[in-house]
Amino acid sequence: MKKLIFTTLIFSLLSCKENTVPFDQETSDIINNFYGDALEHRESYELLRGLSKDVGQRLSGSEGATKAVIWSKETMDNYGFDTVYLQEVMVPHWERGEVEECFFYLNSEKITLSVLGAGGTVATPKEGVTAEVIEVFSLDEVDELGEENIKGKIVFYNKAFNQRYINIGASYGQTGFQRRSGAVKAAEYGAVASVFRSLSSSTYEDFPHTGGMTYKEGVDSIAHGGLGVLSSQRLSKAIKDNPKLKLTLKLSGKWFPDALSHNVVGELRGIKNPEKIITVGGHLDSWDVGEGAHDDGAGCVHSIGALRLFQKQNIKPNNTLRAVMFMNEENGLRGGQKYAEVAIKDGEQHIAAIESDASGYVPRGFGFSGSDEQHRKIQDWLMYFDKNTISYFSKGGGGADIGPLHRQTGTPMFGLSIDGQKYFEMHHTAKDVFELINARELELGTASMASLVYLIDQYGL
Amino acid sequence: MKKLIFTTLIFSLLSCKENTVPFDQETSDIINNFYGDALEHRESYELLRGLSKDVGQRLSGSEGATKAVIWSKETMDNYGFDTVYLQEVMVPHWERGEVEECFFYLNSEKITLSVLGAGGTVATPKEGVTAEVIEVFSLDEVDELGEENIKGKIVFYNKAFNQRYINIGASYGQTGFQRRSGAVKAAEYGAVASVFRSLSSSTYEDFPHTGGMTYKEGVDSIAHGGLGVLSSQRLSKAIKDNPKLKLTLKLSGKWFPDALSHNVVGELRGIKNPEKIITVGGHLDSWDVGEGAHDDGAGCVHSIGALRLFQKQNIKPNNTLRAVMFMNEENGLRGGQKYAEVAIKDGEQHIAAIESDASGYVPRGFGFSGSDEQHRKIQDWLMYFDKNTISYFSKGGGGADIGPLHRQTGTPMFGLSIDGQKYFEMHHTAKDVFELINARELELGTASMASLVYLIDQYGL
Repeated sequence: MKKLIFTTLIFSLLSCKENTVPFDQETSDIINNFYGDALEHRESYELLRGLSKDVGQRLSGSEGATKAVIWSKETMDNYGFDTVYLQEVMVPHWERGEVEECFFYLNSEKITLSVLGAGGTVATPKEGVTAEVIEVFSLDEVDELGEENIKGKIVFYNKAFNQRYINIGASYGQTGFQRRSGAVKAAEYGAVASVFRSLSSSTYEDFPHTGGMTYKEGVDSIAHGGLGVLSSQRLSKAIKDNPKLKLTLKLSGKWFPDALSHNVVGELRGIKNPEKIITVGGHLDSWDVGEGAHDDGAGCVHSIGALRLFQKQNIKPNNTLRAVMFMNEENGLRGGQKYAEVAIKDGEQHIAAIESDASGYVPRGFGFSGSDEQHRKIQDWLMYFDKNTISYFSKGGGGADIGPLHRQTGTPMFGLSIDGQKYFEMHHTAKDVFELINARELELGTASMASLVYLIDQYGL
Repeated sequence: MKKLIFTTLIFSLLSCKENTVPFDQETSDIINNFYGDALEHRESYELLRGLSKDVGQRLSGSEGATKAVIWSKETMDNYGFDTVYLQEVMVPHWERGEVEECFFYLNSEKITLSVLGAGGTVATPKEGVTAEVIEVFSLDEVDELGEENIKGKIVFYNKAFNQRYINIGASYGQTGFQRRSGAVKAAEYGAVASVFRSLSSSTYEDFPHTGGMTYKEGVDSIAHGGLGVLSSQRLSKAIKDNPKLKLTLKLSGKWFPDALSHNVVGELRGIKNPEKIITVGGHLDSWDVGEGAHDDGAGCVHSIGALRLFQKQNIKPNNTLRAVMFMNEENGLRGGQKYAEVAIKDGEQHIAAIESDASGYVPRGFGFSGSDEQHRKIQDWLMYFDKNTISYFSKGGGGADIGPLHRQTGTPMFGLSIDGQKYFEMHHTAKDVFELINARELELGTASMASLVYLIDQYGL
């Protein structure tokens, strides 16, 4: 009986959320110094200024992407990281072209809508496509309407964001089909083009949104464009007033052969176990509007900046730390796939991978994909974080680029969780520029990444 | 022995952070609906647009403050709250006047600095005060310099924010003496005026900062002005280049007799215990620059909005809920004092008071000042909050306006904790305008306030 009681007691102590490891002052001091240094010196912020303003847009296969590769290598070389190298990867190459226009006539007045071709769209004929518009809110609705209602028309997907979600990313999940699959579904029933309401939480701005889409073999490739939220509302109203309304869409997207590009890797070599690797990364490519400051310039400088903090604080890691700028997250994920392929081929041992691809706003926690036991263990680490930076390690999460490594090798992965309330007001639009970055918020992300790397490096998973 | 073990076991279970009360689905649904309604309908945001744009600045004793009182009463009357009334309070009345200027000459070029009189400053003579400037970084330094170095000069306090703090409010605490006490200390040694570096975390903007200051009987009242951060840096450099540099300061602040103003109170009557009160509030007055959108228009609409959510969701509270717009937080705290005085005189029973005076940015938690037992109890309530809204109940905190009630009656108090990274870039400056408010972030504050009120109303403290 006594033994049972003791066992119960011990179990109850272990199963509750109290910390099971003692607080270590040195660890705490190091983490505080990461935050203090980042907030005071703002090196990540200045890096991001360079990536946003000197390099700018950098879609895979573009000149900007090539410049971004050079910028990344030079940045990490200049910091004197132990090793900096490029990893070759063939990437898709699509260009938007010059002409993008969408308009209709209302009592002979030309009403121009804000439009951006979906990433990967084909061009319309030079004079554009002009046809009646049919408004829908789901792919199922297109199936139901069928060829008799769709053929020869422009399909207009107008599903709005559900603003009720605290985690507004759920709305992105629910509306993403419009951009990704809208063209194929419309073309299956003979539509001549398709447009979609921007995947945006904005209610008062009209920045059109772009992002990845697909075509399907055996189905006509039709032009597919994103309309600003206000433009979508205007078009919807115009169709209600005049169901025979004709819309004109002009897009000039074009595909080119795959291009050679690179992941960029920088390392600080581990002093105890140089063969074991902790990877932190973001994706270097961006869409071809705005400056990719939040998506994902922030993640790139969070990652370079995390290693830089080790270097500045003169902390020699036990394991090798690797900052990876992944190429081609946005329209192919070839960089992430290549990274996993090389890691497997070379028999690399990854302890963990951490990705930042949720913007440069203020951090709130980390998502984690690993074992339950690991998940319980890392809860203890929350004692080292100020509650206004990292307040949780939640289950699930990671990143698109480190996903292949995670799935193919079982490497545990983390994703930096960022406050996302404003994210979908600028995501994949011309609004994603450096001016929307707050230095202190960005630097908290960098220090959070460095701190997590330190904890993994010291305590393991 | 067995008893001891059992006692230990029970104690260990109680002292660990696991929830000690079961999860209640109805509570969860109600709280989720508060968030959903707020995010979807954005009523607080529209209220704040009105308070910022139609009412605008509203320093105690001003016409704007009178308009704000009327606006608050009308807003809550229009919502049909059970009772809406004014509580008379005499408030200080100071006006900035028209002329504010600060400049020096550099090789006969006039260099104009951005300046704002501290709230409560006296005027300079019409032609201004022109004198040599002496730069200091603390009050002690003025004591050390003494009359021989200070007399006849303008004292320039130039202590900068320490950017290293995650909670940048700590820097405000460490630099606040410059604005609050700088004039008295300088005047004690015969200074003719004083200026101070804005209490600001901004590094690239030059908005000068205002806020409360004091004079002391028996010490000359000298004019006291806040300089923008960039202006302060410029002046500092100019003094280093020319220690005999003369600065001119013109201010035209003026004091008037105390004015009659009001706290505005709106109530939803409790159905079980109408005599017991849960108060939520913000302060209605603002500084006389910008629009007081964050400070503290946000807190006002968080509070009205919290009651409004009860009304919209048709939830009848057990206890009386009271939204209080406190007058005169910024330069007197007379509203908060009056509220406590009336509560005591009338023998009111307050269960709890909650203040929002930390801006309309995104919420992160609540601070709490009450007993340890209460503090342990409320930890359970975290299970009802999304981790990206309210992730903690920390010890300490509340609000300036509910402080008198808390201290004089022992009423437990809460303060809404908001992400503060950007706060001191706009606090008490012309930058504090409605355009800096994000609707979703603001509404999360409203729903968080409503949710906490609901939990207190249902479960007590």
